[in-house]
Amino acid sequence: MPEILTVVTTIDSEERARALAAGAIERRVAACAQVGGPVRSFFRWEGAVQSEDEWQVQFKTPAARYDALEAYLHEAHAYEVPEILAAPVARASAAYAEWVAEETA
Amino acid sequence: MPEILTVVTTIDSEERARALAAGAIERRVAACAQVGGPVRSFFRWEGAVQSEDEWQVQFKTPAARYDALEAYLHEAHAYEVPEILAAPVARASAAYAEWVAEETA
Amino acid sequence: MPEILTVVTTIDSEERARALAAGAIERRVAACAQVGGPVRSFFRWEGAVQSEDEWQVQFKTPAARYDALEAYLHEAHAYEVPEILAAPVARASAAYAEWVAEETA
Repeated sequence: MPEILTVVTTIDSEERARALAAGAIERRVAACAQVGGPVRSFFRWEGAVQSEDEWQVQFKTPAARYDALEAYLHEAHAYEVPEILAAPVARASAAYAEWVAEETA
Repeated sequence: MPEILTVVTTIDSEERARALAAGAIERRVAACAQVGGPVRSFFRWEGAVQSEDEWQVQFKTPAARYDALEAYLHEAHAYEVPEILAAPVARASAAYAEWVAEETA
Repeated sequence: MPEILTVVTTIDSEERARALAAGAIERRVAACAQVGGPVRSFFRWEGAVQSEDEWQVQFKTPAARYDALEAYLHEAHAYEVPEILAAPVARASAAYAEWVAEETA
């Protein structure tokens, strides 16, 4: 069974989030992607806690395609330092993992 | 502390998502489950990028119960090849992890 | 690159979820946090499957700050046994991981 990763980024508009998702499928750097939100993001800015609405994009891709997905996100993302975090998959449906690998081949 | 997994699936209606969640608790193959959405799913279909609304279900279960949860999902899920992905838990509240184990015993 | 964790908790109101998020940034036990919801939580209570709305808070913090974040959540959370689960990060944008470490130093 191929090793799969779940990769997450966030961005400041639903339209941009959907464009990142569609672009990754188009380039075969992910098998599928889900856009959710808005979520309310909290962070420190100029010494104070700030918050703003963002949308999350969650990609499913083989570990072997992670570098290509990260390179695509650095190029297509509107932020200078975007969140790009990949969670490992401990167990999976074998048929689904095979599908993820086939879609990104 | 028992080893816990976070297991995610997606499905095309909120009603079906809630039924999967409730069924898993009923059968003690998960201690709890959260239904969120809609999220917008992007994937390739017949050569083109498509998208549709889905709902996500996230289950919490001990690693020792994963096989039973996956078997339940294959039986109860409406898709032929459903997404079933389990993320490992690196650190956890010990009391919460014990509760997850007790609820699925 | 510093080792990063994604830590999740859930709570029964959006206001409380936002307070947990802002408090963690304030105390530098997380670099950022996202509040999403409502999600519908299913669990067993007094022998029957119950459900209620909750909000999720997802924190990003270095592994070295996990104990401080968990201690903060046990103190600030309204539940006796809150969900506190940390997912490991397998791969990440190096610049983002550095930012998470700097924000919590």
